[in-house]
Amino acid sequence: MSAPLRLGLLGFGTVGKALVRLLQAEAPRLARQLDVDLRFVAVASRALGRKPAEGLPEGARVTDDLLAVASSPDVDVVVELLGGLDPAGPLVVAALEAGKSVVTANKALLAARGSELARLARDRHVAFAFEASVAGGIPILRAIREGFTGDRIDSVSGILNGTSNFVLTGMARSSRGFGDVLAEAQALGYAEADPAADVEGTDAACKLALLARLAFGQEVPLEAVRTEGITRLQPVDFVYAGMLGRTPRQLGTARRLGDGRLLLSVRTHLVSNLSMLARVDGPFNAVQVSTTRGGDFVFSGRGAGGDPTATAVLADLVEIARRGPSSGVPPFGAEAPAPFAPAELTDSVAPFYLRFVVKDRPGILAELASVLARHDVNVDAVFQTPWSGKTALPFVVTLEPVDEERLGHALVELAALPFHVEAPLALPMTP
Amino acid sequence: MSAPLRLGLLGFGTVGKALVRLLQAEAPRLARQLDVDLRFVAVASRALGRKPAEGLPEGARVTDDLLAVASSPDVDVVVELLGGLDPAGPLVVAALEAGKSVVTANKALLAARGSELARLARDRHVAFAFEASVAGGIPILRAIREGFTGDRIDSVSGILNGTSNFVLTGMARSSRGFGDVLAEAQALGYAEADPAADVEGTDAACKLALLARLAFGQEVPLEAVRTEGITRLQPVDFVYAGMLGRTPRQLGTARRLGDGRLLLSVRTHLVSNLSMLARVDGPFNAVQVSTTRGGDFVFSGRGAGGDPTATAVLADLVEIARRGPSSGVPPFGAEAPAPFAPAELTDSVAPFYLRFVVKDRPGILAELASVLARHDVNVDAVFQTPWSGKTALPFVVTLEPVDEERLGHALVELAALPFHVEAPLALPMTP
Repeated sequence: MSAPLRLGLLGFGTVGKALVRLLQAEAPRLARQLDVDLRFVAVASRALGRKPAEGLPEGARVTDDLLAVASSPDVDVVVELLGGLDPAGPLVVAALEAGKSVVTANKALLAARGSELARLARDRHVAFAFEASVAGGIPILRAIREGFTGDRIDSVSGILNGTSNFVLTGMARSSRGFGDVLAEAQALGYAEADPAADVEGTDAACKLALLARLAFGQEVPLEAVRTEGITRLQPVDFVYAGMLGRTPRQLGTARRLGDGRLLLSVRTHLVSNLSMLARVDGPFNAVQVSTTRGGDFVFSGRGAGGDPTATAVLADLVEIARRGPSSGVPPFGAEAPAPFAPAELTDSVAPFYLRFVVKDRPGILAELASVLARHDVNVDAVFQTPWSGKTALPFVVTLEPVDEERLGHALVELAALPFHVEAPLALPMTP
Repeated sequence: MSAPLRLGLLGFGTVGKALVRLLQAEAPRLARQLDVDLRFVAVASRALGRKPAEGLPEGARVTDDLLAVASSPDVDVVVELLGGLDPAGPLVVAALEAGKSVVTANKALLAARGSELARLARDRHVAFAFEASVAGGIPILRAIREGFTGDRIDSVSGILNGTSNFVLTGMARSSRGFGDVLAEAQALGYAEADPAADVEGTDAACKLALLARLAFGQEVPLEAVRTEGITRLQPVDFVYAGMLGRTPRQLGTARRLGDGRLLLSVRTHLVSNLSMLARVDGPFNAVQVSTTRGGDFVFSGRGAGGDPTATAVLADLVEIARRGPSSGVPPFGAEAPAPFAPAELTDSVAPFYLRFVVKDRPGILAELASVLARHDVNVDAVFQTPWSGKTALPFVVTLEPVDEERLGHALVELAALPFHVEAPLALPMTP
């Protein structure tokens, strides 16, 4: 039997509790099949100082002193499940500096300080693992770090936020509005009380920045990800998407251009109903990796929730136990990531869906069409389905592939026309 | 820069040539980004003794003496791309015994002797890697070995043979017969001149045995996989499948029962058109992993061909270069696999599709129904669509979930009835 790996847990929320339960259940199998012995020696959480908690690991000391656990001499690996930048950031630094390996699920921290923390881990010859931070139980970081080293990754994209996907598939199924379905998601525990990070796209942007860093070996600042939420989608968009053989999905996409510059965004795409991504429903996540020689790969599975996240944390812990803290692959791929090389808006070309809601009066289409023509934007088709609203008329114009700089100029001019009930909505259409 | 890893290549066919080209193209990136230096020092192939070949790696010696390369003192890693059991088996043994790591794509060898070779590699403290043997470029073995160690795998199933999938999707699209589409697949290079191993299911069975061994830690003999080919499918089956909202797919499935016994088969299933597997078209592969806590995961991508296979081989070589030959995870998961515990036919329960082709005369359905009733097999529905054949009438009976032992007895009796034009075809229906 191998020597036990002694764990210190920071944070005892949903994922922390799921991890303790999971390890309790799986310890015999891990010992028998993999010769791995993992033990919690300490659990720290601010809440634990205030009230007693159930489900704590047997034999572990319990404290509200986070730093004491992060730097304790009897801890080999610190498991950081606090989330957020502070105090998680300083605690992870303290743990690494004290020569401890760190496993974390904290995408915000990784997006903000991942390269710095990875460098620190490398300098101290300890492991720094974070499979749980992206797409929950899907071993996608492992795949990118190791599975595709023999190929060249051209793009990484995917459904990275389960809450948004739950809301979009709920709207598609039920013709209900955004607020309605979001409330249902909250009632079912698929959305938090404050859902902004999910539905505004910032959660997905953190994950995308991390994926792009691993896939392309560049420093990718979070700010470089153009981010739009799903909050403007309306039932009518699902009707028109259906007419186009498509369905809305929030996708994070990172694409490497031929010269190495990266194009990054999180936004709602209309994806083809024939694509695998259109089959990824409810709280599921999926990541598509496109490579030069091997073509397209899709990985799907549960992207969030206590159990899937805990299994990903445990897989990282098992890897550290089996390989030893310093035998790991550098977590950010390249020893020294290249500086970030951003693409321009003119590099982003796609066919687009434009949805307008206007006060009905003659001549509107002609005015819109003439603005588009003036900007050299080609209309592919116009859709207008009977609608119950008397004063506000929604309709859709689809565009042939157009670069987003040109489209952006056209949209500014379009939005200034006097007949809109609300601002036009532009969504790219993806094969 | 790390010391170069010196490679000896056995076999110079499609994959071998693709690997040499790939490494030539990717060497600068591997050196720069991953500090990895891989070099071919020797290439051996029987054909190379007979005629000169193009595309050989620069600076490598070329020979038809396979054993000399497998045991050469200047080779660190032997890349076995010969396929088949002999001489590949003895050569891999010789290489491992000479203290060399081995990377192979040889599923037949792994299904037959994988555990023995893995044990030998462990004893000699060398690496033994074979990601390319299952599902081409999809890093599925890596995922099972490392990504799901924190969870418990309940089943592994998937589309494991690109040729069969190409033929089935071609038949679905074009209403053409099996032979026609197979000929097209051969013309396009998706099927070999002798397609038996692909369309009879034995290729998929090798891969399934290997997946099951890794996922469940048991010795899984190839013979334990119940294997049926796709050769009996007819255009009419695609018509009826469509009426049921389904499409035929060759699936290998390995399921662990609650008591640890394994149920293994390769056969044609009718999968729901709403499933992700129904979206896996042409020569693509997909593997679905179902776990106790994390739920269902799907991995899809190109399953065969020189380039995807070569990228998987290269990823294994990169891992050996980065981690060192002896720092790897034991390739078969458990140090000592448990003995194989097979399930019974009575453990296999599914709703079924039965297709009959009969000489049309009154009373046939009543006779069939009474046989099924006598065996306690419940009919769900009967389908009969107008058909051009004058003397042979195809029709379909769907069954409520039934165990296969009972179904088997009923089918024997059904098949003995005098009005069949051909033997009944039974296909399970999968969510």
